[in-house]
Amino acid sequence: MTILIGTHLDSSSHNPPTAEDILQAAKRIRPYINRTPIITSATLNQITEAEIFFKCENFQKVGAFKARGALNAIFSLKESQTLHGVSTHSSGNHAQALAWAASLRNLPAYIVMPENSSPVKINAVMDYGGIITFCKPTLEAREKTLENVIATTEAIEIHPYNDLRIIAGQATAAAELFEDIEDLDILLVPVGGGGLLSGTALASHYFSPDTKVIAAEPEQANDAWLSFTQRKFVPSRNPNTIADGLRTSLGSFTFPIILEHVENIVTVSEESIIRAMRLVWERMKILIETSSAVPVAALQSGKIDVKGKKVGIILSGGNVDLDYLPWIK
Amino acid sequence: MTILIGTHLDSSSHNPPTAEDILQAAKRIRPYINRTPIITSATLNQITEAEIFFKCENFQKVGAFKARGALNAIFSLKESQTLHGVSTHSSGNHAQALAWAASLRNLPAYIVMPENSSPVKINAVMDYGGIITFCKPTLEAREKTLENVIATTEAIEIHPYNDLRIIAGQATAAAELFEDIEDLDILLVPVGGGGLLSGTALASHYFSPDTKVIAAEPEQANDAWLSFTQRKFVPSRNPNTIADGLRTSLGSFTFPIILEHVENIVTVSEESIIRAMRLVWERMKILIETSSAVPVAALQSGKIDVKGKKVGIILSGGNVDLDYLPWIK
Repeated sequence: MTILIGTHLDSSSHNPPTAEDILQAAKRIRPYINRTPIITSATLNQITEAEIFFKCENFQKVGAFKARGALNAIFSLKESQTLHGVSTHSSGNHAQALAWAASLRNLPAYIVMPENSSPVKINAVMDYGGIITFCKPTLEAREKTLENVIATTEAIEIHPYNDLRIIAGQATAAAELFEDIEDLDILLVPVGGGGLLSGTALASHYFSPDTKVIAAEPEQANDAWLSFTQRKFVPSRNPNTIADGLRTSLGSFTFPIILEHVENIVTVSEESIIRAMRLVWERMKILIETSSAVPVAALQSGKIDVKGKKVGIILSGGNVDLDYLPWIK
Repeated sequence: MTILIGTHLDSSSHNPPTAEDILQAAKRIRPYINRTPIITSATLNQITEAEIFFKCENFQKVGAFKARGALNAIFSLKESQTLHGVSTHSSGNHAQALAWAASLRNLPAYIVMPENSSPVKINAVMDYGGIITFCKPTLEAREKTLENVIATTEAIEIHPYNDLRIIAGQATAAAELFEDIEDLDILLVPVGGGGLLSGTALASHYFSPDTKVIAAEPEQANDAWLSFTQRKFVPSRNPNTIADGLRTSLGSFTFPIILEHVENIVTVSEESIIRAMRLVWERMKILIETSSAVPVAALQSGKIDVKGKKVGIILSGGNVDLDYLPWIK
């Protein structure tokens, strides 16, 4: 097992990750992640009249692709940067992923979480050894609390998506998919802060340049679509979507990559997200979370012309609170 | 694609399927079924202190292993036996499997279903082209109605489990598992009417004789356990278990095979079934139905000594009514 420590990307640079950066990230995280399977569904192929390949990051460690970026960030740190641990604010999968990845390098992980986070997610972070500081559920409180935690602990901040090491890590999911399935016409991913989307777009640019990367976003959190079509940054303002992983704004590192390498962004309704999630559960017998259902909704509701095409789709995660399913009132 | 028609087992004989019968069944159904994956889970291995291999028949066609037996039965029929179609009574996966398999040979499938069957299951049977006759929800009404349907249509009856062609078909799941994973110490399956259990026990006897086959059954439907321990047939009497696939009695063909080739039968509580189902959903991110959770419950609640062992488990199906999850009141 080779651990590549210290060959990290300099996150103060604005140059996007190179092909070599992504290959290094893949090598760095390989000992720890699952090489997730790619599955197909006769039903989904029939509905879409296309050949769909699902890259199942719901089967990834900690239940989401976020394990990739967090691992790459943690194992990119030089020894000298690890003395005081790492820190972030997150109510979602990045919190778990960072706590888990930090534990693999025996580093403390200080996680700022809003006090109304779901008990399932709080427990998961604690199970991975994360040290939680609760705060009020506002972006301001989260940032202020994180600032205080870092002032006290001197921990290094690992941002959920606006970090070049995170972007290079997330890119490895698409890189694996391109290794396994050749000649994809389209690759579909959800977009929130743009870590997965920018990484996927770079992987496509370097390793499968004929594949068009298209993102799907909830209509009710359409800041990435607005930013993309207007070609200027539009922040997310208290979006009300069930896809809780996609409520964040694009970042200063992710947005330029998206502008340059993404083919299109489409938006989908809340109702179509729930319908797509249920379709995947019922027909494919796998659990995906609401955010993962967003690109499936784009397919199911005909928002993208895929007829006769070879289409990849990254199912980003499978972390669901099984006490609350969106179709059960 | 080779279709083996007319080399069927004679279901009037009481000789159990031979190794050759099972291999023929595997060859016969291969063009139509999924070679289902075998997956592992670090969490489940940790909980059980064993190495567990899950054979995922929840990913099988029609969502359950029942596709295997139904296909083998349908494609074992001689041309002369197919003139009037096939028939069965079932409220569950066999109904769907038979309708589906019959459609592949362009045969009508007459399915007798209790009038209180779930709409999900009724729709699935209709989607596969099954011709449904509803009856009162009692065994007596089901049998009488089936008798009438057969008198009118002259269709051939295909029993859900007490049929040697069905048993040989169900045996192919274990046969595949033995091909993929060598030296299993234990193979765990649920038991209802005993089609899967007797087939699995035969497959083990022929192809992996050192593997001990152990069945798990709900405490509240413990007729197979009673029959096995008393070595005489005890029928199932209105069992009240959430594992709706396991409410039936053993059959005259399945019971003798079970007596001869099964190592043990253990029983599990209703609460442990629900807990095990949720564990698999939450940690493995796959959907399994209540009946499939029964052997997992036996593992999770320590009913079987598996420490340090290599254990196979057949996840029998994934057909769940997503409007009603057992842990949501």
